[in-house]
Amino acid sequence: MRRKNLDDMGCPIACGLDKVGEWWSILILRDVSFGLKRFDEFQKSLGIAPNMLSKRLEGLVAAGLLEKRLYNEKPPRYEYIATRAALDFRPVLMALMTWGNQYFPPQDADVRLIDRETGEEVIPVFTDPRNGEPVNQPRYKIVRTPRAAASADSGAA
Amino acid sequence: MRRKNLDDMGCPIACGLDKVGEWWSILILRDVSFGLKRFDEFQKSLGIAPNMLSKRLEGLVAAGLLEKRLYNEKPPRYEYIATRAALDFRPVLMALMTWGNQYFPPQDADVRLIDRETGEEVIPVFTDPRNGEPVNQPRYKIVRTPRAAASADSGAA
Repeated sequence: MRRKNLDDMGCPIACGLDKVGEWWSILILRDVSFGLKRFDEFQKSLGIAPNMLSKRLEGLVAAGLLEKRLYNEKPPRYEYIATRAALDFRPVLMALMTWGNQYFPPQDADVRLIDRETGEEVIPVFTDPRNGEPVNQPRYKIVRTPRAAASADSGAA
Repeated sequence: MRRKNLDDMGCPIACGLDKVGEWWSILILRDVSFGLKRFDEFQKSLGIAPNMLSKRLEGLVAAGLLEKRLYNEKPPRYEYIATRAALDFRPVLMALMTWGNQYFPPQDADVRLIDRETGEEVIPVFTDPRNGEPVNQPRYKIVRTPRAAASADSGAA
């Protein structure tokens, strides 16, 4: 019921969340962006039950975010490779990291974005690529336009 | 069980997700950032059961993301105001919007970030505020440093 609602909301945030599934899936995408690929690597990192991990991985494959590849034939073993869509999820992770560090920092570790050249911490800002201006100002506005009912029928334009 | 795991992970993404709760809470934060304040406004926007909405709103109040204010005495009616932490969640919403539009666009509406001055769509990019460089390049790296066990004991430094 929840999934149907999210999909029907006419909002890219809701549609995106619907595909990601739930927290575990976001944390799998995080691990993938750090280079993890294999079942046991995810399991070690996340500490979740194998059946739950399988389910999340299959969900991400079905949504087109991971690609499953055989890397060992006997016994059959698979690894999970990020698709372009998963790599492009990185800004969401970065935004969550920045926000989490600001308001709910982990107690037992320090996780930061670092400039390798200077070693300094960088707190990234969303900007307009045309002029470098931060988009967090009144000049920028989110606009929602309902689409004509006709477009729902037409598979191809 | 899940919540405990997330909190224990030593990762600001996990800690942040733990506070937000789940999808409905993210969508409530979205609605708040569009100016919605009242129970019936959220209910209309989200189409969820009242008891579920109450629970999510209380959770966001408990996490310090919303402030509950009485706006009518007889009968008592409350509105929910974004705290600084909720306002600062906006980049996460923007990153989700950008990603959702790219890969899973809603079928019945078009939701875009617009430059009011020119009317053009803006696809925001995460940049280093010191030099305007996009952080999505090898120069920038996420680094995780475990904290010393001692720091867990000390409330004040």
